[in-house]
Amino acid sequence: CRCPLPRGDCSLSRLLRRLLSARRSLELCLFAFSSPQLARAVQLLHQRGVRVRVVTDAQSMEMRGSQIGLLRHAGIQVRHDQESGYMHHKFAIVDRRMLMTGSLNWTTQAIQNNRENVMVLEDHEYVKAFLDEFERIWEEYNPRNYRFF
Amino acid sequence: CRCPLPRGDCSLSRLLRRLLSARRSLELCLFAFSSPQLARAVQLLHQRGVRVRVVTDAQSMEMRGSQIGLLRHAGIQVRHDQESGYMHHKFAIVDRRMLMTGSLNWTTQAIQNNRENVMVLEDHEYVKAFLDEFERIWEEYNPRNYRFF
Repeated sequence: CRCPLPRGDCSLSRLLRRLLSARRSLELCLFAFSSPQLARAVQLLHQRGVRVRVVTDAQSMEMRGSQIGLLRHAGIQVRHDQESGYMHHKFAIVDRRMLMTGSLNWTTQAIQNNRENVMVLEDHEYVKAFLDEFERIWEEYNPRNYRFF
Repeated sequence: CRCPLPRGDCSLSRLLRRLLSARRSLELCLFAFSSPQLARAVQLLHQRGVRVRVVTDAQSMEMRGSQIGLLRHAGIQVRHDQESGYMHHKFAIVDRRMLMTGSLNWTTQAIQNNRENVMVLEDHEYVKAFLDEFERIWEEYNPRNYRFF
């Protein structure tokens, strides 16, 4: 990471540390996911037995460097939208108790070069609102509900 | 707006209502701003004497439909980045007391077609963190600090 902060304080390190604190569940609702470091952390959690679910945007999945194929290959459940609009959220929920959300897509470009924000919230009210949104999207993007005509 | 909610409940209406409650100041820190309705509201506030300051991304300013030129033409102060990375924030602060932030860029595409979130926070702690970030960026993007070589 090229950010000017001390190594342990940079946004990637902080995000990784919070992510790796997951013990039971991880919900990811991300427009774009192309950071190899974050993908490795998510795979590690999956291997440790954390229940990982990922929702993403179909168009961004096709972009160069997307880690979504790799996560699927590792056995992680991924669902994506079927709409022309973007699934533009960028949030993660750890153990149904910690919400991380903001402007940051999980890409190397965003982490290294952009001006971004990530809020970390543990208030039940916010966590529940985003968890409810996740469950709505998760069901809406269930392949059983695909319409081909 | 084509969203399925009752007219007064849709995200654009709610955003407009909160925006138009400004009496003294409005800070906008927006990657992309192309919604004509939101631009009209910002112009109206400027005409009412609210101190409006806008920070945006140079690349997105060049995109079709950007309202930034129009805001500048109306006499509103706008500053933009000078970097290859994006100024990717999407937040607004009303009267130094209400923060609106999330995944939503202020574009018609995002409002009408995307899956997005906007959080509204009035806790001093959050408002202050984003206000501090705004002031840092405002000074950093001061044209006096431009480096041409």
